[in-house]
Order: sequence, then C-alpha cells, then structure tokens
Amino acid sequence: MALRGAVTRLLSNTQKCATVTVSRAQGTAAALKGKRDALNLEGQLTEEEIMIRDSFRDYCQEKLMPRILMANRHEHFHREIVSEMGELGVLGPTIKGYGCAGTSYVAYGLIAREVERVDSGYRSVMSVQSSLVMHPINAYGTDAQKEKYLPRLARGEILGCFGLTEPNHGSDPSGMETKAKYNPSSGTFTISGAKTWITNSPVADVAVVWAKCEDGRVRGFILERGMKGFSTPKIEGKFSLRASATGMILMDEVEVPQENLLPNVSGLAGPFGCLNNARYGIAWGALGAAEFCFHAARQYTLDRIQFGVPLARNQLMQKKMADMLTEITIGLQSCLSLGRLIDEKKAAPEMISMLKRNSCGKALDVARQARDMLGGNGIADEYHIIRHVMNLEAVNTYEGTHDIHALILGRAITGLQSFTVQK
Amino acid sequence: MALRGAVTRLLSNTQKCATVTVSRAQGTAAALKGKRDALNLEGQLTEEEIMIRDSFRDYCQEKLMPRILMANRHEHFHREIVSEMGELGVLGPTIKGYGCAGTSYVAYGLIAREVERVDSGYRSVMSVQSSLVMHPINAYGTDAQKEKYLPRLARGEILGCFGLTEPNHGSDPSGMETKAKYNPSSGTFTISGAKTWITNSPVADVAVVWAKCEDGRVRGFILERGMKGFSTPKIEGKFSLRASATGMILMDEVEVPQENLLPNVSGLAGPFGCLNNARYGIAWGALGAAEFCFHAARQYTLDRIQFGVPLARNQLMQKKMADMLTEITIGLQSCLSLGRLIDEKKAAPEMISMLKRNSCGKALDVARQARDMLGGNGIADEYHIIRHVMNLEAVNTYEGTHDIHALILGRAITGLQSFTVQK
Amino acid sequence: MALRGAVTRLLSNTQKCATVTVSRAQGTAAALKGKRDALNLEGQLTEEEIMIRDSFRDYCQEKLMPRILMANRHEHFHREIVSEMGELGVLGPTIKGYGCAGTSYVAYGLIAREVERVDSGYRSVMSVQSSLVMHPINAYGTDAQKEKYLPRLARGEILGCFGLTEPNHGSDPSGMETKAKYNPSSGTFTISGAKTWITNSPVADVAVVWAKCEDGRVRGFILERGMKGFSTPKIEGKFSLRASATGMILMDEVEVPQENLLPNVSGLAGPFGCLNNARYGIAWGALGAAEFCFHAARQYTLDRIQFGVPLARNQLMQKKMADMLTEITIGLQSCLSLGRLIDEKKAAPEMISMLKRNSCGKALDVARQARDMLGGNGIADEYHIIRHVMNLEAVNTYEGTHDIHALILGRAITGLQSFTVQK
Amino acid sequence: MALRGAVTRLLSNTQKCATVTVSRAQGTAAALKGKRDALNLEGQLTEEEIMIRDSFRDYCQEKLMPRILMANRHEHFHREIVSEMGELGVLGPTIKGYGCAGTSYVAYGLIAREVERVDSGYRSVMSVQSSLVMHPINAYGTDAQKEKYLPRLARGEILGCFGLTEPNHGSDPSGMETKAKYNPSSGTFTISGAKTWITNSPVADVAVVWAKCEDGRVRGFILERGMKGFSTPKIEGKFSLRASATGMILMDEVEVPQENLLPNVSGLAGPFGCLNNARYGIAWGALGAAEFCFHAARQYTLDRIQFGVPLARNQLMQKKMADMLTEITIGLQSCLSLGRLIDEKKAAPEMISMLKRNSCGKALDVARQARDMLGGNGIADEYHIIRHVMNLEAVNTYEGTHDIHALILGRAITGLQSFTVQK
Repeated sequence: MALRGAVTRLLSNTQKCATVTVSRAQGTAAALKGKRDALNLEGQLTEEEIMIRDSFRDYCQEKLMPRILMANRHEHFHREIVSEMGELGVLGPTIKGYGCAGTSYVAYGLIAREVERVDSGYRSVMSVQSSLVMHPINAYGTDAQKEKYLPRLARGEILGCFGLTEPNHGSDPSGMETKAKYNPSSGTFTISGAKTWITNSPVADVAVVWAKCEDGRVRGFILERGMKGFSTPKIEGKFSLRASATGMILMDEVEVPQENLLPNVSGLAGPFGCLNNARYGIAWGALGAAEFCFHAARQYTLDRIQFGVPLARNQLMQKKMADMLTEITIGLQSCLSLGRLIDEKKAAPEMISMLKRNSCGKALDVARQARDMLGGNGIADEYHIIRHVMNLEAVNTYEGTHDIHALILGRAITGLQSFTVQK
Repeated sequence: MALRGAVTRLLSNTQKCATVTVSRAQGTAAALKGKRDALNLEGQLTEEEIMIRDSFRDYCQEKLMPRILMANRHEHFHREIVSEMGELGVLGPTIKGYGCAGTSYVAYGLIAREVERVDSGYRSVMSVQSSLVMHPINAYGTDAQKEKYLPRLARGEILGCFGLTEPNHGSDPSGMETKAKYNPSSGTFTISGAKTWITNSPVADVAVVWAKCEDGRVRGFILERGMKGFSTPKIEGKFSLRASATGMILMDEVEVPQENLLPNVSGLAGPFGCLNNARYGIAWGALGAAEFCFHAARQYTLDRIQFGVPLARNQLMQKKMADMLTEITIGLQSCLSLGRLIDEKKAAPEMISMLKRNSCGKALDVARQARDMLGGNGIADEYHIIRHVMNLEAVNTYEGTHDIHALILGRAITGLQSFTVQK
Repeated sequence: MALRGAVTRLLSNTQKCATVTVSRAQGTAAALKGKRDALNLEGQLTEEEIMIRDSFRDYCQEKLMPRILMANRHEHFHREIVSEMGELGVLGPTIKGYGCAGTSYVAYGLIAREVERVDSGYRSVMSVQSSLVMHPINAYGTDAQKEKYLPRLARGEILGCFGLTEPNHGSDPSGMETKAKYNPSSGTFTISGAKTWITNSPVADVAVVWAKCEDGRVRGFILERGMKGFSTPKIEGKFSLRASATGMILMDEVEVPQENLLPNVSGLAGPFGCLNNARYGIAWGALGAAEFCFHAARQYTLDRIQFGVPLARNQLMQKKMADMLTEITIGLQSCLSLGRLIDEKKAAPEMISMLKRNSCGKALDVARQARDMLGGNGIADEYHIIRHVMNLEAVNTYEGTHDIHALILGRAITGLQSFTVQK
Repeated sequence: MALRGAVTRLLSNTQKCATVTVSRAQGTAAALKGKRDALNLEGQLTEEEIMIRDSFRDYCQEKLMPRILMANRHEHFHREIVSEMGELGVLGPTIKGYGCAGTSYVAYGLIAREVERVDSGYRSVMSVQSSLVMHPINAYGTDAQKEKYLPRLARGEILGCFGLTEPNHGSDPSGMETKAKYNPSSGTFTISGAKTWITNSPVADVAVVWAKCEDGRVRGFILERGMKGFSTPKIEGKFSLRASATGMILMDEVEVPQENLLPNVSGLAGPFGCLNNARYGIAWGALGAAEFCFHAARQYTLDRIQFGVPLARNQLMQKKMADMLTEITIGLQSCLSLGRLIDEKKAAPEMISMLKRNSCGKALDVARQARDMLGGNGIADEYHIIRHVMNLEAVNTYEGTHDIHALILGRAITGLQSFTVQK
C-alpha cells in the first residue's frame, strides 16, 4: 500500500530525500508567499511524515479534488473513495498491526489536514472509520473482533459508523435513551433506540453503537447491516458535508450476539475516548480547509483586477490575509505540539478540546473571510470556498460544539463545572 | 389589489383598527418576549403602514413560507410569485400612478422586511423588479416607456432584470466594457457586452441594461427577450439565493430601438440612483431575515432540553440572544429614521450606504449565531436558518460589498477617497 | 438659570432660530463630514431641546474642557463644577418644580451626551446628583424631604451620592448586608454597613443609602455628612473616572431620624428605579464620549501625514471610521427613540438595559479604535482619547455590567433567569 | 552573575534537576488549572532554559512586583532595576562575550516573558537596552565600541536608549529628517534633529541614534549624555508604561566623533535589524503580561462569591477564560518555534512581524477581558490588570503598529506593497 511503500522508498531513495531537503530550504524563504506554512512547520516534521503527507496530498489533489464539485452539488457520496483510502493505508493509520500503517499521531494529523484541504465531508468519512470505528475496536475489543474487523476496515472493504448522539441528547450523552438488555438464554443483547446525525450510517456496513445496559452503564456494540430491526434512513436537505452521507440509526429490538460487545470499557469513557481521538484529527483537518480557503482567496485577489490594480493590492484585503495566515500558522504549530504529546502519551483531553475548538472556530472565520474576498463569485461552488464555509459550520459543531468545549476548558481551568444550570 | 384594498379598508373598518391598537399596546409589554421589536417600532408606524405590512406578512407566511424549503433545496424559482406580488400591489410600491400603490418609503421597507423574513431570494426578485427596473423607467424614462412597461411590471405580468455588473468589474462599474453604438440610419443602438450575477435574468422578460456610448457616457436601455443576440444563461451551482434565478446577460450585437433608451439620465448617476433605491430596501430586508433567525433560534432553545433544562436557560445562549436582539432593534430604528428622511427628501446616499452595510453585516452575524445555537440541526434546511446564513452572504456582498460601503463612508467622512490605490 | 433662559430666548429670538434652521439644513449635507450626526438626529429634536443642548454644549466646551486634562492627570475633583451646573439648570433637569427645569427626557439625554463628550467622570457626578439622589427623593420622598433637599441639590449647593453597592455584592444587590434597625424610643434608625465604589462619596454632603430593615425589606435613607459614625474614605489608585471622586461609605451605627426614611418605596424596586433613570443618561452619555473620540481621531488622521498622504487616506483608517460612525449613529437614533418612549411613559426597564449595554460596549470599542488610530500619541493624555478609554471601562461596568445586562435581556427574551447557577 | 551561576549549578546539582523533572510531570497534569501553560511548553524547554527562567522569575516576583504599584501610580522609574538586571545577567543575554550570558534566543524570550508578567514598562527598559542598544553595537559596531560599551551596558552600569522615531514619522522611518553632516576637518559628525517617544531617553547615558547622512543613507551613531546640544525632555501625562521613562531626544548640532559611528551597516537595514530583535522579545513579553491577567482574573473569580457561587462558576466567565487561555497557549507555542528558528538562523523578519502582532493584539484582548471580569475592582491599580491594559496599548503600537505589521505580512503574502496609497 502506498503509505507503507512510501516509508520503504524513503529508506532507499536518497536522491529524492535530497530534493526534499532543498525544497524545504526554499520553502522557508517563500513561506509567506503562501506556498507552505509561515513558521516552518515543514522543518519540524520527520522525513517519513513528509513523505506520507506528500504521497497522500497527491492522491487528494489528483483524485478527490476533481470529484468534489459534483459530489457536493448533488449530495453524492462516492463509496469507492473509502477503498482508495484503504489502498493508500490511511484508514486507522496509527494502529499497529491488523494491516494498519502504524504511523505517528503527527502523521495522522497531516493526513487529516490533506483530505480536509479538499473537503470536510471526506475527512469526516475517514475520521469516523479511523477514530470512531477502528479505534474503539482496537482499544476496547477482543482479539477476535480485531482480527475480524480491523483488516477489512483498514482496506476500506467495509465502512463503519459510530452511534452515540441521540435525537434528544446532542451535547449531553449522559441522557442516553438507547437500551441494551441481555438475554441469558440466547446469549444476545436486545438493543432498541435511535441515533441521529450519524456520518456514514446510510452506507455503513458496521456500526459501533453505544447503549445503556441494565446496570445503567454505557457499553459499546458492533452492529452489522442486515441484522433484523436495524435501519439507517438518510437525512435529507443537509447544507453541510454534502459529499458524505449522514443519517440515523434506528434499532428496533435488534438482536446482537454477545461476542459483538466491546468488553474492555464501560461508561462514557468509551465513547469519549473515541471522540478525543477524532477531535485530534479534526483539529488538524479544519486548518487544512482553512489553508485551502486562504490560498484560493489569495490567488483570486492576485488575479482579479479592480480599479486598475489587483484586489490583493488593497489594504483591506491584505489585513484579512494577514489575520488568516496568522491564525492558520499558530494553529498548526499547536497541532504539531499536541501530536507530539500524544505520541509521547503526555496529552490530556483538555488539550484536545482546546485545539479542536480553536482550529474549528478559526477555520470557520478564515473561510468566511475568504468567501467575502471573492465577492459575488464567492457564492458559486466552482470556487469551492462557499462549500468549506458550509462544511465548517458542521465541523465547528460536531464532536463537541464551540461552546461545549469552552465549558470543558472552563471546568479544567476553574475546577468548577458549569454545564448544568439551576432548574 | 390587496395593498390598496388595505388602505381602503383602513378608513372604513374602525373595529379592526381598534383591535390593532390593543394588540400594539400588548406588543409593548411583550416586546422582549420576541413577539415584536424591542423599542416599540410598531408605535412609530402609521396605521396605514401597519395594515400594509400585516396584510403582506400574512401572504408571506401563508403562501411563501410553505414553498421556500423545496424551492431552495432544488434551486427552483416560482415565477408565479411575481404575479401574486403584483396582485398584492407590492411591486414598485412607492411609484405614484401607472397602477402602482404610491406608498411611503417606510411602507416599502416594511414590505421588504416581511418578504425577506421568508427568503432573501424572494426579496431580491422583488427588489430588482421595484428598484432596479420600475424605478429607472419611472425616474429616467419617457412617458411612453412608463405607459408601456410600468403597469405590466406592477402587475407582475412581466418580470425585469438589471444589467450593470460585468465579469471583470464587480465593485468598479466605471470600468464598464459593454458598448452601445448608435446607428443613425436605422435609429437603433447596437449593444454588445456581457453582464453577470444578474438576478432574474434567466427568466426576465425585460432588462434594463447599462452600456457605454460612443461619447464615453453610460446610458440605460430597455432590452426585451426575443431581441436577436440577447441571451441569459443561468449560473449553476449557486449556494445562496437558490430560490431566485441568477444568470448572465450576453449581448452579441443586439439591435435596440432608440425609443428604448432611457433619455433622462447619463453617467453612473443613473445606475447608482437605482442601487441606492434597492439598497434602502435591502437595509430593511436583511433585518427581516435576521429577525426570523432570532425568533427561530429562541424557540428552538426554549423547546430543546439538555442537561435537564431548556437550552435557553444557559448564559451562553442568553448572551447570544441579547446581542442579536440588540442589533436587530437598533438597526430597525435607524431604518425607520432613514425611511422617513427619504420620504421627506432629506436622505443622502451615504446614509443608505451606512444602513445597507450595517443591516447586512449584522444580519449575517445574527444568522450565524442562530445557526450555531441549533447545533447539529442547524445545518438542516428544514430549520431554515442555514438557508438564511447562505443567503445573507450574497446580500452582504451585492449592491456594494461591506468593504466598498466602508470606503464610501470613509470618503464621506474624510473627504478623501481610498478606492483606488497606487499602482 | 441658563437652561430656562434658553427656552425664554427661544421664543423671542426668531432671527437666531432662523439661523439654526439654516445651519441644520447644511448639517444634513455635511453630516458625514463629522460635523453632526449622520442620520439627521438634529432634525428630530425640538427647537427647545436644541437650544438646551447648544447652550450646555458651549459651557462644556468652554468651561469644562480646559479643566479636564489636569483634573484627570492629578485625580482632582473640581467641586465648583457642581455649582456651575446648578446655575445652568442641568441638575435633576426632568423634575417638575423645586427649582428644577422640567425638561423632556430627550433633553436630559442630550445634556448627558454633552458633558460626557468632555469626560465620563463629570457626567457621573451629574448622573449621581440627578438620577440617584434627586430622583429617589422626588419619586419616593415626602413633601418635606423634597422641599428640604431638592432646591439645594438643583442649585448644586449640596452634592449627593448613592449607596447601594457593597464590597461583597457588586452585581447582586439582593445579598445586601447593610442593616437598618428601628429604635421606637428615639424614633430613629441605626444603620451599619459599608458601601463601596460610590461616586462623589468623599465630597458628598448627603447620601441616599439603601439598607435592609428588620422585616428583610430594603429601604432608602437620606444620610447627611456630620452624622456620627458616617465616614467616606476615598479610593486611591483609580485609573478611570479620575476627575470625579470615588470612595466608600462606612456606617458604624449611624443614627438616622425617621424623617430621613424615603417612605414611598420598599424592596429593590427603589434602587432599581434609580438605576434605570441613571442608565438612561449613561446610554446617551457614553455615545457622547464616543463621538469625541471619533472626531478627534478623524481630525488627527487628516492632519498627520505618513508616507506622503494623510493617515486618513488609508483604507484601514477609513474602515475604522466607518464602523465607528455607524455605531454612534444607530446608537444615538435608538437613544432618541427610548427618550421619547420614556417621555410617553411607554418605556420598559429592559429597553434601558439594552441601550445602556449597547452604548457602553460600543463606545468602549470606538474609543479603543480611536486610541489605536493615534499610534504612539494615543497614550498621551493631552490627546484626551486614552482618558476616554480608561473612563469607559468603568462606565461599561457600573450600574450593571455588560454581562449582567445581557442576562437581564436574556431573561426578558426567554422568560428564564440565568443569573444564578447551580451550586 | 545569577544567570551564569544558574547554568553552572545546573551541571553540578543533579538532585535539583531531578526535582525539576518531577515537578514538570505534575505540571502536565495540572496544566489547565492555570499553574503553567496548557500545551506543555515546559517540556519543550531545555533544563538550562528552565533554570534561567526560574531564577529570573524569582527576582521578578520578589523584587519587581512589590515596587510596581507605586512606580506606576506616580510615574516613577527605578533606575536601580537596571543594575539589578545587570547583576542577574539578563541584559543583552544572547550576546557572546563582553560579559554577556550568551543564552539561546528561547531563553531571551523567557526572560522577556517573566519581566513583562510584572510590567511592560520594565520589559521595555530591558528590551531597549538589550535589543536596541547592545544589539546594534554588537552587530554593527567596531571592536573598540564593543569593548567600550557592551560590558558596562551588560552590567547595567550605564543605560541606553534608541533614537529612530521622529515627531512627524511614526510608522514611516524613511521620511527621517534628522541629519548627520561630516566635518572632515574635525573628523566629527554634526547631528541635528528630534526623536520622540524614546523609552529611557530622559535617564539614558548613551543613545544609539539614526540619522540621514549627506549621501542620503541612514547611519547609526552612539551619542553620550553630556555632549553639547543633546537634551532629553521627558514626556508628561503618559497613561501607559508609566514605570519607565519616556522622552524625546533633541539634537541641536551635536558634535559626534567619527569613532562613534556604527560602521558596519547603512540604510534602514540597521534600525530594522534592531527592531526585529526587539519585536521578538515583545512577542514573548506581551504574552507574559497576558498570563498575569489571566491568572489574576481566574483567581479573582474563584474567590469572589456572587449570587451564592464563585463568579468562576458562571458560563460567561468560563468562556472568557477558555478564550484567554487558548490564545495564550497557542501564542506561546509559536513564540517557542520562532525562538528555535532564530537560534537555527532560519527565521525571516515576517515571522517576527507575525508573532509581534499576534502576541500584542491577543494580549491586549486578554487584558481587556480580564479587567472586565473584575468588575468595578478592575479599575483599581492594586489589582494590577488595568495597568496591563494601559501598558499593552503602547506595546501593541510601538515597534510597528498592529496595522503596520498587517501590511508587512500582506506584502510578504502577496508580493504587493500597500503601505503607500495614491496621493
């Protein structure tokens, strides 16, 4: 697979490495010309990370970018993209074994950034598969479950989804209503309930679903399409993440074999662990979307002549670009630091909350500014920026809204929780 | 027609007036409960204005609101709406005679606010017909032109569009490339050029088009569908104002009879006068959209229970609502003052720039906040807010972007222009 | 007194009136040149209001402006200003009788705006005297109290202060610890407690103090300097409102005769009524400070040449000015509407909260932008803007912080209070 | 001296190092409790950097903090602080030799952060001495100049200032009016002109002054107090950086010996090199001030009870703190990256512009939020935050305003300059 091939090539291909080094030196000089980042992020990556990133970037730009315009316009999800990503080795990339690439978390972040540079919907598909399906199976599952599911998920042969959010419980999963009842006679759990705003659900083959057991503890289960009582209606009229499929998971007394229970976790620590994993990828990814918007708006204003000069010659435009590049640059530096901390097992969940929140909020601002810079053309999807604006609304909201992460941080800062208010 | 009927009824129907008075008194008490405005705008309107507003509001809520969801989702323009509006007397409402209602500018503003409460696309259709087609014919046209076009436009029997913006000249119409060449032999003008981002163009029957004559002066012409060389391709992939049609106007040596020249204006004063007229309506309309978003988000957070209490019980939600209502309220008060000034012929174009800019910028902020308050549901079109977010991106941009109006104001404040920068 | 004289002159001096009318017409044309307001506020005032405003403006510019620089630099309060204001008739101006001017609330707002154009400290002195001392005596006092205090307060012969806020209870007066105990034998109340951040207290002759009686109800008392146990230490090291004196009120078993009780109110409605009155004046006043900053920054950037052109020629400067003037203009329009509503007895307290909050927050923003526009010179007090920046920090905080007013509005909007949170 | 001592102790004192390691591990867990930074900046520093930082932090907290309240209140500059800093080895710390410490640029940044945590005025004194006086002598001076001045400057025995900004040329030094005329007979330069807003000038012993020579090139000179025609009047009425002295440098035909010319630079590259050096320190320092404000506001809201709970329990407070900590954290991470790049000689001036601008703008926002969180107490200097608010206004302005750095970045991003606008 491409990613692993890249690593192999890295070791043998010294000439290419040399080239990379040279281009990095130039990159420093040309940093602010918009070619790379402005604070030499590049120089802080390993050669392996750069090669993984570059080979995946090529795929994203050559294979995804040409498909996204129509996919988004017509709300069409290209299922084959998952298989292509599997081929490239970017699904569940940090997992060791089971056909996964075993990269660093920094590399995972770089991958998320490249795919979201194209579209947040595509990154969502990847995040769900990697962080919300493969991660819990790897972290909380049995060896048999890992053997059964991980290689097929890694290849993109099957697609997964993650069922936590319920219609009445968005920011507050502790209010979960989905129930799992154990039947000693059959050795199965009967699961009933509804999950909503589930990325991938209409097209998923498997679903990691969280349900409350009779002891009041939340536990995770692997459900498969085809189980009786399991259905996944699509949500229509979505004006965000239109290139990915979103739906509900309806479970009407679905019988789930005991061996599909994820045995090694109980309570909300299970889904929260998954969300932390995914949020880390989002922190990188959202900035990738912001980078696209910045570069596209920069190029547009350089090309477009008004009052006899390029739009980019105007102070009001330059100030916007200065703000945009600054936030992208300092956001990326912090994502890198966080990735290194995760790799060293020194990261705290609040750090992830901080950067998920910062990246999403700032990326949304950047995208809005970029759209504004394009004037009337900014509402046409062929310029791509309006799509990012719409996507980032969802990205800023899901897996913890901007405000919820503020309260998570507030609690960490003060030791006092303010989620719940007096009735 | 309904509007004129309303005025008639006003004079005879004292019982209903009494009721209106009572409900206004209650309105004051309940102001901040979100029912009306918070600074008693209502009490500053005349009874005629209120009746015009109320009867049109009923139409908008009962007839337009049910159509907008699918119209926007599928980019479908309902042509019949124009006829319905004509029936109600709200097209070119400030014009005296020619079958027009002859209302105050305040009433015109109230009409724009009601229709944009439903959708900015519908308001755009109406603004173009009223301010950009009927207004220039009325202000700059011959009696024959008025007689020929105004009544049919007022009834919505024919639909118009306005061709000023060109592909290479968005904020700078002085760079206009469309040419009109007079042919003494035939007594016609030959017009060639392209206009883009033209609301209504794909479905318009007539177009007021601005072109540069051989003497270098810009002049206006009434073009009609069916003229040879005149075509209006639709712009696809628009993610804003999807319920209205937008396109180009392509003119390939269109022969236009001399009697279709608008004789009473030359230079950019012509189109700028139209734009001022339209911008005034936008200033009111955008706040109508903001009001819808505020009320919808308020109700959503009252209905939605999280952590055991309505979302609306949270300080972070209340602060957003306080900000939103404040901006809506002070914005509307100023629109009213401006309307009165226009009616008294004391308004300056810079006043209109100020409020077009303020209303649009603030409405966009309000809509974004509202969308955020709805969490994941905020991206679904059935909640309507994401549609307003997308619409207001265009509204904030067209007829002078937020930045361009800043520079118009800056010039008025300082006496120094900063549109053009050193080459 | 000057204000009443102004009204008299108004009736006899037709020539001057004519001049005023002419200059108002010119005012419309020159509005945005920064001479007056940008939406013809002027034209919505009565001639009496304009004359009151103009005569007081002359005093402020000619008599206060020259004193403020050193008063602020050295934290010096000029007591004689109160007498001068009394002479002009601007203390307690809306009160009918007792030597007060009996103006409209709009005129009161215009007076507050003129004095705060010079300094918020001076306006604070005036607000306290008018809204927090004279108003409660007039609204809640006996005829004897009114006769005894109001004329001397109106003349500025004596100065008052208002004791509500306590060291441990800033935004939450319901937690009041100051106690009043009735002694039937002597017919006096014994009052003990401490009040802090009390404008005027170190130099005040009388104090309207709120204390909790034995029945748990809050009541108001008029205390006089010289009463045993009454002291008013000054607060040092204040970097805001330095031209007014601020201190504590310490009450160590002060014996207060029963006739000094304000009999006609009990509960927090008393002080809240006063605060509403004062907040209305602040809403106007803060915008006066903002107007000064706007005009000063505008002139500075016109005069200062950098890179060969006036600073005002830069887009970044013009955008700031456009934003500043817009907020000032729409804020003032709403203050005028509110004043008219108060005069018609149609105003609700939430309306006042909305505009106190809006004016203060926006004025602070305007002042900060103006300071920024002056570059290094912006930190020198001789340019006056840094003083307004510091002042407005207090103004934005006192009589209800920006956040507290958000929650007051939030409660009005939703019907749910979010002041108190779960313990 | 302390800093060099610290390094020595580092090598021998393994037990203490072990302790440091343990406390860093705890630091990670307690990160968000406000004790250290939130993204483990600590773990990215070398042990030497930490020891330098800690020993200087002790000095700042124990020796500077107790002096600052009165120094600021009374505009008093404590000259002896310079000597104390010299003793500690923090003046010109990155210079190798001449009695300087030769630390990394990261260590220099940490030093700036610690001193500005107390007061930006003190940091300004240090920045001027280190970056604007010692740096140009070291970078552009002769060996004799280095021998003569650097050791005494490093010890704080003499204090320097830097004369670039002129009364008519704030953001545009190319308009410099100060002239230097060479006199072949005496081998001296005659320098005439005026510099303003010069930190330290009233108390400085030497001044590095930039003047335009007869060939039109800007060159640097070392002037000494006592030279005839050299005077340094203090600027009065400053409401920012009051603990440092600020003044003008007036030069009325000052005769300067040729050996006082800095020979190794000409043109604006000279002063710009100094400014870049100083801006780097400011980027760190401003965040130190922000950190103080954050911690002080956090503690205040934890201690202050309103409505029965700590203020910190309110969502509106927690959101502010989340925003503040996020900006501080991501800002510091980027400063660290920049410091490492400077140490590796890979930094570009635009990177410094980006972070000077970001740190100052964000620090000012943080300080303003913190002041707001303290309510009325926030305007009293004893809580220190209002002082930082005032200081940061200057810090955000000097050595390139926020807007000027936006245009520097804009030029780097677009390749088009927009400093100068059409006349």
